[in-house]
Amino acid sequence: MGAVQVAVIGSGAEHEARGEEVGRLLAERGCTVVTGGLGEVMAAAPRGAKAAGGTTIGILPGERREDANEWIDHVVVTGIGHARNLAVVASGDAVIAVGGSWGTLAEIGFASRMGRAVVILEPGLSVEGVPRASSPQEAVELALSRLGGAGT
Amino acid sequence: MGAVQVAVIGSGAEHEARGEEVGRLLAERGCTVVTGGLGEVMAAAPRGAKAAGGTTIGILPGERREDANEWIDHVVVTGIGHARNLAVVASGDAVIAVGGSWGTLAEIGFASRMGRAVVILEPGLSVEGVPRASSPQEAVELALSRLGGAGT
Amino acid sequence: MGAVQVAVIGSGAEHEARGEEVGRLLAERGCTVVTGGLGEVMAAAPRGAKAAGGTTIGILPGERREDANEWIDHVVVTGIGHARNLAVVASGDAVIAVGGSWGTLAEIGFASRMGRAVVILEPGLSVEGVPRASSPQEAVELALSRLGGAGT
Amino acid sequence: MGAVQVAVIGSGAEHEARGEEVGRLLAERGCTVVTGGLGEVMAAAPRGAKAAGGTTIGILPGERREDANEWIDHVVVTGIGHARNLAVVASGDAVIAVGGSWGTLAEIGFASRMGRAVVILEPGLSVEGVPRASSPQEAVELALSRLGGAGT
Repeated sequence: MGAVQVAVIGSGAEHEARGEEVGRLLAERGCTVVTGGLGEVMAAAPRGAKAAGGTTIGILPGERREDANEWIDHVVVTGIGHARNLAVVASGDAVIAVGGSWGTLAEIGFASRMGRAVVILEPGLSVEGVPRASSPQEAVELALSRLGGAGT
Repeated sequence: MGAVQVAVIGSGAEHEARGEEVGRLLAERGCTVVTGGLGEVMAAAPRGAKAAGGTTIGILPGERREDANEWIDHVVVTGIGHARNLAVVASGDAVIAVGGSWGTLAEIGFASRMGRAVVILEPGLSVEGVPRASSPQEAVELALSRLGGAGT
Repeated sequence: MGAVQVAVIGSGAEHEARGEEVGRLLAERGCTVVTGGLGEVMAAAPRGAKAAGGTTIGILPGERREDANEWIDHVVVTGIGHARNLAVVASGDAVIAVGGSWGTLAEIGFASRMGRAVVILEPGLSVEGVPRASSPQEAVELALSRLGGAGT
Repeated sequence: MGAVQVAVIGSGAEHEARGEEVGRLLAERGCTVVTGGLGEVMAAAPRGAKAAGGTTIGILPGERREDANEWIDHVVVTGIGHARNLAVVASGDAVIAVGGSWGTLAEIGFASRMGRAVVILEPGLSVEGVPRASSPQEAVELALSRLGGAGT
């Protein structure tokens, strides 16, 4: 099996700095960063990962590869709209939620249902049964520890 | 435009009686009941609707029409697995959640993101910003009132 | 199990008259007509079905119920773009292709893979192994005969 | 934009040798190989690519990352069944079909509709309007030439 893949989800421009830090830390641990491939947190996390020499995957909702942001190495073009969010979280061995709203809630619910290790980075949504972290570093450590140390 | 369509989501055998009552009340109001077409709440709501002479739609995750429960009038076979849950809520002008767990949380998040009128029937998940009802009758009335009285 | 469902696929304004006739004939046989719910053949077939007192289902690619044409009784909103074409053919016990191009070819391939009874109404695509009919009446009879007479 | 991505589609154990050769040639040209990530041609092409030091992406129909074959570097888990075939071809700047049956026909139709450069490697399906190649080398050259020389 290849590198540990961690999906970073969420939205909101105000969360980009933390998303970028999460991406950087994941790349330093050797993890591949998976996002929805568009803007805000979906761009910030791969930007951080690439700055640290990491690898990134973007899973797009539309039909055009060109829609991917410039920090995406490997582009998956789904054409299935919001349903691609399920593919984003399903493709993560672990999932870190940075900010977000209704769409992020849907993804957390779906990821949990599929048994993925989900961590919410504060401040952000509060979902019963999902652990929260107070810093990007804690979020990454918590997510990876829930995988049994894989990727560390 | 045809009849108001209301999606009934949720899981858990202990919620079937209330799901059936929701289905019956919706049919009495002239609404078409939409569910995932399989068992538990997905069967109870259309069973209630048919008992009241209503119309039902089931949206299946697999590839076989025969998987639909016997109270489904119109069967949509998607073959897209869990992603069909998005189609269930998207096909409702309103959405009523009866019980449920992670999958239901995902559907509530998705439905809210798409601007559907969502109501949670207690006891059940608690999601900030989503109104709750204490009885099937209140759930149906609340869901329909959020549509501006359509279907009443 | 409810009424036999027949999916009518294809595109091209020049095929609308024949699509409408197919819809009418299916309704007269008691079949429910399933289409993609938008324009051209997707509107013509349900228009013909409604003129004959039939029932129709439209499976939309987008997220808005309002996009369905006015002859659709039951609307399924998928939000999954072109992938909804798979749901259209999967929801038919039989499939009739009226005109069409690349998208229709994809649907014929997918329907055949899933074991659906497919019939191509001439003139139209030529696909090895898929029977062709020279008139709407022949197409409907051929499709239903492949179901073992169901719906007749 | 990253490396040129080429989707290799098809099925049939008898086509594995040619699929592996296609994968090898693509990797030598610097292209990333995209497949459905399971067996037969979906495994042969990435196996050839890895032997030549290339990079591979697998897009799975199910919900388990572990289902990917051992030559897949980057795994996308979609959970959407056959609809993931659309994502496979949509993720290719070009598409090469090696053998195949109904499912492959569906993918060729869908890829053509989306404007992807499709090439069929003989012997295989015959689809009007889709160019054919008589060897893996010709298939790769033809596919890349249709991209305007990208990846060469």
